[in-house]
Amino acid sequence: MISREVQLVRRPAGTVDESLFRVVEVDVPAPQDGELLVRSVALSADPSMIPRLSVDTYAPAFVLGEAIESRAVGQVVESRAEGLAAGDWVVHGGGWRELAVVDAATARQIHPSADIGPEASLHALGASGLTAAVGIDVVAQVQPGDVVWVSAAAGSVGLVAAQLAQARGARVIGSAGGREKTAYLSEEVGLDAVLDHREGGIADQLAAAAPEGLDVYFDNVGGDHLTAALDQLKVGGRIAACGMISGYGRPQTGPANIANVIIRRIRLEGFLVTDHLDRAPAVEAELRELMTGGRLRVPVTAFDGIEQAPAALLSLLRGGNLGKTIVRPVQRSTA
Amino acid sequence: MISREVQLVRRPAGTVDESLFRVVEVDVPAPQDGELLVRSVALSADPSMIPRLSVDTYAPAFVLGEAIESRAVGQVVESRAEGLAAGDWVVHGGGWRELAVVDAATARQIHPSADIGPEASLHALGASGLTAAVGIDVVAQVQPGDVVWVSAAAGSVGLVAAQLAQARGARVIGSAGGREKTAYLSEEVGLDAVLDHREGGIADQLAAAAPEGLDVYFDNVGGDHLTAALDQLKVGGRIAACGMISGYGRPQTGPANIANVIIRRIRLEGFLVTDHLDRAPAVEAELRELMTGGRLRVPVTAFDGIEQAPAALLSLLRGGNLGKTIVRPVQRSTA
Repeated sequence: MISREVQLVRRPAGTVDESLFRVVEVDVPAPQDGELLVRSVALSADPSMIPRLSVDTYAPAFVLGEAIESRAVGQVVESRAEGLAAGDWVVHGGGWRELAVVDAATARQIHPSADIGPEASLHALGASGLTAAVGIDVVAQVQPGDVVWVSAAAGSVGLVAAQLAQARGARVIGSAGGREKTAYLSEEVGLDAVLDHREGGIADQLAAAAPEGLDVYFDNVGGDHLTAALDQLKVGGRIAACGMISGYGRPQTGPANIANVIIRRIRLEGFLVTDHLDRAPAVEAELRELMTGGRLRVPVTAFDGIEQAPAALLSLLRGGNLGKTIVRPVQRSTA
Repeated sequence: MISREVQLVRRPAGTVDESLFRVVEVDVPAPQDGELLVRSVALSADPSMIPRLSVDTYAPAFVLGEAIESRAVGQVVESRAEGLAAGDWVVHGGGWRELAVVDAATARQIHPSADIGPEASLHALGASGLTAAVGIDVVAQVQPGDVVWVSAAAGSVGLVAAQLAQARGARVIGSAGGREKTAYLSEEVGLDAVLDHREGGIADQLAAAAPEGLDVYFDNVGGDHLTAALDQLKVGGRIAACGMISGYGRPQTGPANIANVIIRRIRLEGFLVTDHLDRAPAVEAELRELMTGGRLRVPVTAFDGIEQAPAALLSLLRGGNLGKTIVRPVQRSTA
């Protein structure tokens, strides 16, 4: 069978643009023992993929001339593995491909319902949700009454983090860029305060929103946001360092007020979701319950057609997407 | 009685120099109930005093026109307090004064011996020792086999931190500026590796000394040292942020590689000794034993005459002093 995939053809030299990628048609091999052939209905585009375009990070760089690695959801077309059959839904790591042959051991069966469709397993019920929960509960240890700031709060991780902090009884401040996102956070999510970093300095907005100071900062941005948090955190404050998108694909600015961590006894701690996979079942169960009860909402910004995957990632880098960014391969004949 | 004291007369505008201070003669009031009149034999000069010359920090700024606050050791001249009598030795917070009237509740009796004199209570057996122990054991949680870098390792806190890390079974790298300090660390303390930040970039020296990476960085410096540590720490590394003298009295440089905390799951945590005073007796007992056994040494750089106190502090800021910096008021008639 023929499939299309999006490959990385060169590494960024300064800027990230569409010329780094190409869409190619490939012959899909038949699945071997223990493998599945999966037709993906949704591919993930994540901020954390951006540093992987380059080799100068600890995260494994994407391989030139191969399909971009990503999480995806789809239906099994052909199974050579125990316990999974054609028609079953799976989340898998098959990347930016229409059809993927994947090791069944690395795929996870899901059971989409009318209420909660398969794409949720790429956001709240997948890595984004687990990332948010680890940051809020394990790293920041949010308590009732805490004042919590979540940056990039209209993104996939940020939305779950902000709503989970609400569920923990915190006062939650969210920040995002642009009217569509901030309106969603104010009107749909009902955060206690919403900041728009496109409408002036984030430090002044934060000081006005949290005059009594912050207990927790959930950092998805770095740069001026991290600096603002360090100036606003209380004694004993915690920073859950989840991502620093302000430094993806461009030089990072270090916080000149880093010495605040001493006087204020601040703990700044980075984390990766892959260290916490044992928590996934419990976290998924709680987040599913919150979704079902309408207390957790993650809108999707979808790009139709696998050839739109680079545009989806670039749009993410520009802050263009509300909620989870998804690429939907267009269904077509594969004969 | 007449005493001399060193007062702060104006705040730094950019630079810290001797013109900020004046030495004045004052009439010493008689101690009231619950107070002691103490003649100090040694006054402390600490890096942490430098930010307190200004008002733009969380630490309480020194008051203009009053004697500089500091720890000191001395002998009681007159006691109006239970349990203390003339001739007793005390550590107290009487500041840069020859004679101080202090609340006995804030003074602590010490028992200097021929082996361990009174000045040790201003370094290893006082705040410096407790600071070092909290950083090594509570914040960084140093374990046997850890690779630990202590910056400003020839300073009062750094020397104790480095030797305590040795006692914990760590491989210890120390850094300092200049031949006198580095020779002391290599030859007297016997650290595993010693870096001299005056002899080229600290990052390259660190990479050569710890090719396998660092588990712990005990930060007394900030700036380029903190940046170098963030590039050399292993996954799961810890930074005990004790002080950032590189930013005292001049603008701090933020670490542009702060995003390393995410990929490497680094914990950067600030601390102040005043949160951990309950540990003081146990820490003092251990450090006293190490000193008696010759496994903990802290040399003293002494400035004779209270009028030398500003020079002592400025010398500290320039990295001029090996070990603990002490000011010894010159003994004279007080009639």
